[in-house]
This record gives sequence, structure tokens and C-alpha cells, in this order.
Amino acid sequence: MSFERMQAIVNRYVEAFETADINLIREIYADNATVEDPVGSAPHVGIEAIIAFYEKALASGAKLSLSQPIRVAGNSVAFAFDVEMPGIKISPIDVFEVNAEGKVVAMRAYWGNENLQM
Amino acid sequence: MSFERMQAIVNRYVEAFETADINLIREIYADNATVEDPVGSAPHVGIEAIIAFYEKALASGAKLSLSQPIRVAGNSVAFAFDVEMPGIKISPIDVFEVNAEGKVVAMRAYWGNENLQM
Repeated sequence: MSFERMQAIVNRYVEAFETADINLIREIYADNATVEDPVGSAPHVGIEAIIAFYEKALASGAKLSLSQPIRVAGNSVAFAFDVEMPGIKISPIDVFEVNAEGKVVAMRAYWGNENLQM
Repeated sequence: MSFERMQAIVNRYVEAFETADINLIREIYADNATVEDPVGSAPHVGIEAIIAFYEKALASGAKLSLSQPIRVAGNSVAFAFDVEMPGIKISPIDVFEVNAEGKVVAMRAYWGNENLQM
């Protein structure tokens, strides 16, 4: 997967939050995708569970901004970013695994208490 | 796995390069660990293959410095850093998966051409 295609997927993800547009989330993910956020928690399996998860996230007013350039390797992209919500900032590193159709099949979000700022 | 233990493992990893001490690499990894660097390439499987890989890396004079705070989630830690070698800088994001004994069982390094600076 080219750097440009991966950057476009990550940009669309940021845009989904910017515009609170759940349709962009539906576009980004494959039907059988999994989302583990944070890593170590029970994954959301399948597009409908994923949509339900992001509906809450988008409704929270969270806005995303990349804090470093993305890293593309094989069919994966890792990226560091900040999530700003009223009264809180979280700074995760997410990893997307992308299939041949350019859809995200696995998302893992790495963050813990020490990556929160009130 | 606590944040402090994960930070200690990452710090020991940085120190292994700083001191070019292959024994620290042997301490960090489980015997049956895998190292995929970069993600998408053939993994190094088992401690002897891993040692051979790092012997070359340490001999190159590479020095590591974290560029952001580490992210700890479940049994994993993700961290963004710079690798400086004579004439080149690489900026990966690595993910370590750690077992109950505190040994790294899987390392994945996310970086590509766009994360190189000559």
C-alpha cells in the first residue's frame, strides 16, 4: 500500500471527526474489521459494532490532529496524534492494517492513563 | 504490565544501543520472540536470529532517542523514536508485546522510505 494511499486514509479518519461524519467511518473500515481501543480491551468486531463505537466518539466532540508524520510499513500505518475533547486531551498511537481494497481491517489504539491530560 | 515496567524495558532498549551491549538485547527478549523490522518484511524468529539482527544494528553505531512519551496499553507499548546513524536518521514507531515475565515476545517496527532523512 503506497504512502499516499495510507496518508489519504488517515486524513479521512481525521476528517470524520472534524465533520462528525459517521459515513466516512463506514467508508474507511471493511465490513469484517476489528477495532481494539485501547489495546487490551474487548475489540469491537464487525462494521455495525464499529459504527456504534464511533457514533459515541463523534458525539463527544472529539477532534484529532496528527502530532508526527505517519509511518507506513507493509499493509500497515502507525500514527501518533492528539484527541481533544472538552476538558481532556488523549495522545494515542493508532495502527491500521489495510486490505488490498484499501479498507481498514484492524485498528489498534495504544494509549493509557499516562497519555491523558486534563 | 505497569507503565513503569514498560518504560524500564524501553529505556533498556535505548541503553542497549547507547552502550552497544548485545547482552541487554538478550535480556529484553524472550527466547521464542519475533522481530519484524520493518513490518511487512520477513520476521526474525527466536533469540539467536534476533541477536544476529541486532549485532549488525549495534555495530552500525545507531543511537536511539524517544521523540514522544511512550504509550502503554494492555501488554503492549508503542513508542516513537529517532535512530541516528552516520549520514542517516530513521524515525520509526515500534510496538513491543510483553509476556507475564516482562520479556518482549513480539516487536514490530513501523517505518518506510518517507521516515528516512539523509
